[in-house]
Amino acid sequence: MERRTFLRKASAAGAAVPVVAAPAILHAQPVVRWRVASSFPKTLDTIYGAAEVVSRRVAAMTDGKFQISVHAAGELVPAPQVLDAVQQGTVEAGHTALSAYFGKDPTWAFGMGMPYGMNSRQYTAWWLHLGGEKLFNEYANRAAGVTAILCGNTGAPMGGWFRREIQSVDDLNGLKFRIGGLAGVVMTRLGVTPQMIAGGEIYTALERGTVDAVEWIGPHDDEKLGFHRVAKFYYTPGMMKGSPAIQMVANAKALAALPPEYRECLTTACHEANTYMLSKYDASNMTALKRMLAGGVQLRQFPKAVLDACHKATQEVYAELSARNADFKKLHDHHFAAQTELIAWSRVVENPYDDYMAGTTARRS
Amino acid sequence: MERRTFLRKASAAGAAVPVVAAPAILHAQPVVRWRVASSFPKTLDTIYGAAEVVSRRVAAMTDGKFQISVHAAGELVPAPQVLDAVQQGTVEAGHTALSAYFGKDPTWAFGMGMPYGMNSRQYTAWWLHLGGEKLFNEYANRAAGVTAILCGNTGAPMGGWFRREIQSVDDLNGLKFRIGGLAGVVMTRLGVTPQMIAGGEIYTALERGTVDAVEWIGPHDDEKLGFHRVAKFYYTPGMMKGSPAIQMVANAKALAALPPEYRECLTTACHEANTYMLSKYDASNMTALKRMLAGGVQLRQFPKAVLDACHKATQEVYAELSARNADFKKLHDHHFAAQTELIAWSRVVENPYDDYMAGTTARRS
Repeated sequence: MERRTFLRKASAAGAAVPVVAAPAILHAQPVVRWRVASSFPKTLDTIYGAAEVVSRRVAAMTDGKFQISVHAAGELVPAPQVLDAVQQGTVEAGHTALSAYFGKDPTWAFGMGMPYGMNSRQYTAWWLHLGGEKLFNEYANRAAGVTAILCGNTGAPMGGWFRREIQSVDDLNGLKFRIGGLAGVVMTRLGVTPQMIAGGEIYTALERGTVDAVEWIGPHDDEKLGFHRVAKFYYTPGMMKGSPAIQMVANAKALAALPPEYRECLTTACHEANTYMLSKYDASNMTALKRMLAGGVQLRQFPKAVLDACHKATQEVYAELSARNADFKKLHDHHFAAQTELIAWSRVVENPYDDYMAGTTARRS
Repeated sequence: MERRTFLRKASAAGAAVPVVAAPAILHAQPVVRWRVASSFPKTLDTIYGAAEVVSRRVAAMTDGKFQISVHAAGELVPAPQVLDAVQQGTVEAGHTALSAYFGKDPTWAFGMGMPYGMNSRQYTAWWLHLGGEKLFNEYANRAAGVTAILCGNTGAPMGGWFRREIQSVDDLNGLKFRIGGLAGVVMTRLGVTPQMIAGGEIYTALERGTVDAVEWIGPHDDEKLGFHRVAKFYYTPGMMKGSPAIQMVANAKALAALPPEYRECLTTACHEANTYMLSKYDASNMTALKRMLAGGVQLRQFPKAVLDACHKATQEVYAELSARNADFKKLHDHHFAAQTELIAWSRVVENPYDDYMAGTTARRS
């Protein structure tokens, strides 16, 4: 009876309209403008677009007072120099795939995803709840005065486009493969010649046979570059990047100088964009893949022997890097210990459920 | 050269500190107080805690001006009446599992997740990018004057705690099973007697054999209720709820009356909490499961014949509900058509990658 009385009173007092409980205090927020250099071109609408989603959300949350302009790769800064530009304060932040800075130090790759690393869900759990963010940003702050905020994931990428089939480990030998960073280093162990070619030039290189294969993202993006017109075999899975996380990398001083509410808006919007990007790719990849399959593309799965050989080479590279780079070792040990636990959990319920549903849907379609 | 000159200039002008580009305009935001009724007790720290995360984020983003107080189940409103309280404006919003309102209309269940429905990632893609949110909220607005904002996911739940093994479909016959909503309706087709028992009384019911089995959430939460002390067999997967989405259900008038910036902050914080909840469960479930396995719990997978029988019964129930409920049919057809596409995409790269990694980690551990 007491509860009912209380509820009736509450219902009368707390109506379904905002309650103005205090006189409006005049509190002025400054107009702040940030420039974000994206490492991606506008044609990659989902990965590039996530930064624009952040910009729109932050503006809408702050009544237009925190204005973030997003600049496509090359507009202010060439794609590979985004981290430098943030470090130097040329721009306040960059939206980038941190494995691109592998050449500076392989430790940066843990800000994106590792060969045979975590899937998107595992990476998010590691980053947000298992100490990944803290550990990585200790490194990022020390190495470059920057702080990474999780701001996207592409999902597990495809293994790439191949002009000829990969039926054995030997077929990798001599392969000219457009693949970069840590993945490229691993691949050399198997006789691959990694090639770095800018996005806009890959199509021609593949068409002319300057490269035999190219790794890019997934169907939604790959289709736009037209790889399916010059390479017939589309391989899965893309085991060499884990599931790429995309980070909003902010100059640490610029971030600290923000009014606290703006910093909070930025962080929240980036975390929302993390989901936005992944779910948008999920919503669009199959449509693009179906079109390409209808056009004659052959979907192929890497033979287990190839996956095993690349896995073994990956572990060798990890051991060597860990032996000579304490930062890499610290992140490596933390990341992969967490991965083992997270995979163990995936095996209990998510994988069996997904596998059952995959089988059921396959029977239906 | 032009680019370099430009960059140097930009670097000098746009320093790594906020740029105050306009005189601060005195713009007062009102203090707004909302009350959120949670359907969950505080002991369910992750699912209940997600609403507190939203509250803290929103306060921090608005300099404390939009204040959301979160109230545990029973504090203002008994758990099953949260939707009514929001509809009536007793509270501005509720944080709830919408399948609980299956008794009003089974269409509500699409706001949480369906038997043999989408996993968390598929649900998010459906909700945010494939029209799920729009379609569901057309119904929710019309039926109860409320709007659902995606605000959590538990991940695929466990199948539940059983006092005896389920080795065949016949073992379900006569089973007294604490399972609710649509899942309960399906289970009756297989001879199960569904029982609804409040959270706090389940342990005793299971201990005394008043029920033979109970479905709850997953290891992190289940362990706290101590089910492992009175039921030995822990079954996977929990196919009867999909992967439960948790919604922030707002009174539509209260939501429309919010200053636009506050509405934007609330939405963004809820979307962040969607990821927060899932990743926190992922980060903690295995630890709890390991403790329970060490204490003698037996992990069991439902036989395929049981999964198939429940799947068949589910499809029959869907067909019957669709035949007599146009709202249900509309959501059903949309939801499951999207699921077929999303599962097809999962099968291309995510499932093969997860399966390979599961095998590799199992060999290692």
